[in-house]
Amino acid sequence: MSFVIDAALVGTGGMMPLPNRWLSSVLLRYAGHLILFDCGEGTQISLRSLGWGIKDIDLILISHVHGDHVTGLPGLLLTQGNSGRTEPLQIVGPAGLRQVVSGLLSVARSLPFAVECRELTAADGERVGLEELSVTWVEAEHHVECLAYRLDLPRGPRFLPEQARQLGVAIQDWKRLQRGEIVSGVRPSDVLGPPRRGLSIGLVTDTRPTEAIARLVWDVDLLVCEATFGSDEDQPRAVERKHMTFREAAQLAKDARARQLVLTHFSPALVEPEAYLGNAAEVFPETIVGRDHLTLSLRFPEE
Amino acid sequence: MSFVIDAALVGTGGMMPLPNRWLSSVLLRYAGHLILFDCGEGTQISLRSLGWGIKDIDLILISHVHGDHVTGLPGLLLTQGNSGRTEPLQIVGPAGLRQVVSGLLSVARSLPFAVECRELTAADGERVGLEELSVTWVEAEHHVECLAYRLDLPRGPRFLPEQARQLGVAIQDWKRLQRGEIVSGVRPSDVLGPPRRGLSIGLVTDTRPTEAIARLVWDVDLLVCEATFGSDEDQPRAVERKHMTFREAAQLAKDARARQLVLTHFSPALVEPEAYLGNAAEVFPETIVGRDHLTLSLRFPEE
Repeated sequence: MSFVIDAALVGTGGMMPLPNRWLSSVLLRYAGHLILFDCGEGTQISLRSLGWGIKDIDLILISHVHGDHVTGLPGLLLTQGNSGRTEPLQIVGPAGLRQVVSGLLSVARSLPFAVECRELTAADGERVGLEELSVTWVEAEHHVECLAYRLDLPRGPRFLPEQARQLGVAIQDWKRLQRGEIVSGVRPSDVLGPPRRGLSIGLVTDTRPTEAIARLVWDVDLLVCEATFGSDEDQPRAVERKHMTFREAAQLAKDARARQLVLTHFSPALVEPEAYLGNAAEVFPETIVGRDHLTLSLRFPEE
Repeated sequence: MSFVIDAALVGTGGMMPLPNRWLSSVLLRYAGHLILFDCGEGTQISLRSLGWGIKDIDLILISHVHGDHVTGLPGLLLTQGNSGRTEPLQIVGPAGLRQVVSGLLSVARSLPFAVECRELTAADGERVGLEELSVTWVEAEHHVECLAYRLDLPRGPRFLPEQARQLGVAIQDWKRLQRGEIVSGVRPSDVLGPPRRGLSIGLVTDTRPTEAIARLVWDVDLLVCEATFGSDEDQPRAVERKHMTFREAAQLAKDARARQLVLTHFSPALVEPEAYLGNAAEVFPETIVGRDHLTLSLRFPEE
């Protein structure tokens, strides 16, 4: 198990890519895998500058199928193909995803790897994830079907060596106990501490704040959330266009008791997002105004 | 009639967009219209930096439907729509264009303007063009259907004022003669000089050099031509991948008696295209190695 997730903002813009701001997208790195959240036009270029790799993106989470969140898919997949990728790629998103991906991939009919495209529903019983990392989601509130995501990396209980010694388990058998096996009558639970908090990330964009989203991202270590409008005066516009202001994103983070909030998906009209930090920080002090290529690492705390 | 065409290289890269090189695309400005040749991922971002406008692109010429030449279309059209465009947009290209454009536009179903998508064939009798500017084409030689284009801006014969005076035409009637009307028995041909050379541009990419292309771009003022590989040693690769080396592009320009050659569509492996200028200039001295945002103006010469 890897004990760290790195997150990078591939871009922080909404609606259209700008010369100095890529479209909003998040790249997560975990245990040799890369997971991408949304893929607007130009995402592969920003990914190349970022330098974490492109070929090894194994899972793509799509919030919704508006152009600024998906039109980078064909170029990204063609570039993965040109890099020699052969492993299947999983793309998940809301209802309607398959048709749009199929349309976009009309220019990429002969990729050297399989693309598994899956439309997620509330009733979906199948697991989405990679190794220990699991993905859950709820419906967001936008003009089209849109999903908010949560990623969880669970943490096993601590192994208690003193306990194992006292119970007479040989050191070479400790690994078996840690894997869940019973060794000479000693059960794993006899040598393991209490459950421990894992790592979690919320990915929320193109939506109004909702209770369902607040429940989904409850207590996450990192909430990357859209904040299309900086000024409080734009709140009516945020309602109309089904986005959020900085203050509303901060309130969502507060309601969800998130540990840290990173704002993204800024309107092209929002030239200096940083100038509006105060509107969010008043409500939720642990707010960072995102910028392209901002990176954060989540690590299990020393215990 | 406008007496000038401006050309800009929107990008100069082949295969995939790079952080320092946009995908190959050419923007032409003529009489208030913008004409775009190819539209790979990121083209709208480079267009924004260039600053000639996006909304007023009235005609898009597509060489072929490989991803690096078309995946920027949905983003570009969405941005045109967001700018309030209502005039129809014409997209022309080879057979298969309609299906790919329809697929790509699966994310742009409600544009506020009509998209007229037209597949050009050799037998196509209908005119393509804008005002006086007309477009012709031939099939190129690539792995898929691909077209090379030529644009012609004709130039009317010079009006001869001395002649008009001698024939007794009043100055206020000169305009009528220039428009082709007969005035008091004087025919336009009585007061007009011999035919004059117009302006012409060849747009050639993703192809081997062929005789048909050399004939198409015969005597053009400007030939913008792909030159994927700089080194002569890559010639076998150019044959295999159906592209050209610098030297081959120069030979095509020479065979066509073009007036000026601009090289573009460089392989991502070609880090310093300028270093290979000699390979082209030996064959065709009037060669420029393209770079993103290089602009050139074609003007009717003073006569």
